[in-house]
Amino acid sequence: MSLDTAATQPHERMQAALADDLEAVNLLIRDRMASEHAPRIPEVTAHLVEAGGKRVRPMLTLAAARLCGYEGEAHRKLAATVEFIHTATLLHDDVVDESQKRRGRPTANLLWDNKSSVLVGDYLFARSFQLMVETGNLRVLNILSNAAAVIAEGEVLQLTAAMNLSTTEDIYLQVIRGKTAALFRAACEVGGVIAERPEPMIEGLATYGDGLGIAFQMADDLLDWGGSSGAIGKNTGDDFRERKLTLPVIRAVARADATERAFWERTIEKGDQRDGDLEQAMDLLRRHGTLEETRAEAMGWSARARDALAVLPDHPLRDMMADLADYVVARLT
Amino acid sequence: MSLDTAATQPHERMQAALADDLEAVNLLIRDRMASEHAPRIPEVTAHLVEAGGKRVRPMLTLAAARLCGYEGEAHRKLAATVEFIHTATLLHDDVVDESQKRRGRPTANLLWDNKSSVLVGDYLFARSFQLMVETGNLRVLNILSNAAAVIAEGEVLQLTAAMNLSTTEDIYLQVIRGKTAALFRAACEVGGVIAERPEPMIEGLATYGDGLGIAFQMADDLLDWGGSSGAIGKNTGDDFRERKLTLPVIRAVARADATERAFWERTIEKGDQRDGDLEQAMDLLRRHGTLEETRAEAMGWSARARDALAVLPDHPLRDMMADLADYVVARLT
Repeated sequence: MSLDTAATQPHERMQAALADDLEAVNLLIRDRMASEHAPRIPEVTAHLVEAGGKRVRPMLTLAAARLCGYEGEAHRKLAATVEFIHTATLLHDDVVDESQKRRGRPTANLLWDNKSSVLVGDYLFARSFQLMVETGNLRVLNILSNAAAVIAEGEVLQLTAAMNLSTTEDIYLQVIRGKTAALFRAACEVGGVIAERPEPMIEGLATYGDGLGIAFQMADDLLDWGGSSGAIGKNTGDDFRERKLTLPVIRAVARADATERAFWERTIEKGDQRDGDLEQAMDLLRRHGTLEETRAEAMGWSARARDALAVLPDHPLRDMMADLADYVVARLT
Repeated sequence: MSLDTAATQPHERMQAALADDLEAVNLLIRDRMASEHAPRIPEVTAHLVEAGGKRVRPMLTLAAARLCGYEGEAHRKLAATVEFIHTATLLHDDVVDESQKRRGRPTANLLWDNKSSVLVGDYLFARSFQLMVETGNLRVLNILSNAAAVIAEGEVLQLTAAMNLSTTEDIYLQVIRGKTAALFRAACEVGGVIAERPEPMIEGLATYGDGLGIAFQMADDLLDWGGSSGAIGKNTGDDFRERKLTLPVIRAVARADATERAFWERTIEKGDQRDGDLEQAMDLLRRHGTLEETRAEAMGWSARARDALAVLPDHPLRDMMADLADYVVARLT
């Protein structure tokens, strides 16, 4: 879930346009992750929060609010809320996935232990709820608490769907809505709500966040297979090794003949993977055209996100958000 | 954290007095722990929620609200909220403590895995926030989100205080306020808030919950040392083996001579425990009188809880709550 960097990318232009707001959000994050008596909390949190994440989610909240003409400061609390939820999720994800690296650095569960990651994650969840409650906006609380439930449900679904060849496209969509799109959607939506804009605009922001998140995650899943051309690189095949079913595989399994089915059963269900299996899996995906199809699906969600912005006011931030939707799929070749 | 059972105990009388409310809360819990797409969630939750917990915390919310003359239904949502927070905490605690048994049954982390316990716990946290948001009462949201943060902070503090001989009584009090008293306190307080009673009554309920929770946890910690007489039984010494510092040890360490200090350093800090060490530890606690002192402290907090109820209306539920405060320390001999 990282965005490549280069000059004048949309999220960099957003960073520049929202510099004051972002600075205030960073101060708020640093203030709220403090704990007088449990110094382990800011240590673990800082490791993750200050490790060069791009703050895409809080930026979306700030951008949505500003684009809607919001002039107060509550959007900063909501942006910090969103980042805390995201960080808590990362801490727990790394425990669940037994990950060793995130953003090129050792994970918190490796540097400290699983216990610290679980409990500090819980602390950040609680802090995020305190922050959102401070806004006193019940609709915002409703949106964000619903998002938190969808995220957790999606994570459990992903856990039980792994290694299971009967996973459908519907389940896949639910998993990625949970793990990625729900927070993108809520992050955008609350910006419109806090600005008290008419329903169609709020709905437009929600649809944008949903499409952006889905496109982003589908692109990530496709890149794990080397992109639509299916070229093996050093970061290819993690999902295959972890026996996670993403869209390219789900479609290839659905069209498998008996021999191919036996291959997926052995490698994904039984977990018996041998030399050359990754190459063969990729060959099957290419043969069934599912890498190209996944790219087309991601492009479709990206276009849907961009289109949803049409009801929003004409504004430089709106253009940057639209460009961001293009950008997350532009890395797919 | 279990209460012994026998006929006509205060929590059993509360159960009878609140039967209709409790039935409604149980239905609400069952309804909200469902997940259409992730059946793992209700499986794990049911294992814990329906495993004969005594529902002390949700009963306190119901009792506080009814005692304050509340006639609506929002207190049931708050009671379910409190039980969900408690259940989520248990799931994560058992992962952190690597526990194998809870309430005499295998833990969820053993029956399923740590991943499920972490993620289902997150789901229940999110569900608890959805439930409390539904009440639309911002003060209640404030109290419960603060409690969630204090709980998580206390858990982290406990983690870093373990095996650390410089742990003070202040830190101990903070840990048990976090792990136990914060939720008892919030559970009682929100009952008064939802009933819109005057501030002194709400404050009385909060003080009651705080005292009850602290007395309860101190009693639990003392029983882990065999009670104030320090008799070794089959459930004695878990905290010693896990190198957790509770009040009897903290005070004995503070008064240790050089030889005793070396004993605590070896057994607690270095974790080098040998046959006969538990007996020697207990001997030190008896010699310094810290078991008796801990009992006196617990009795003091219990009395404080009982006294705080004086400002509340005269009501059978108030008497049961007062009796409950006596009961949690009556098991100490």
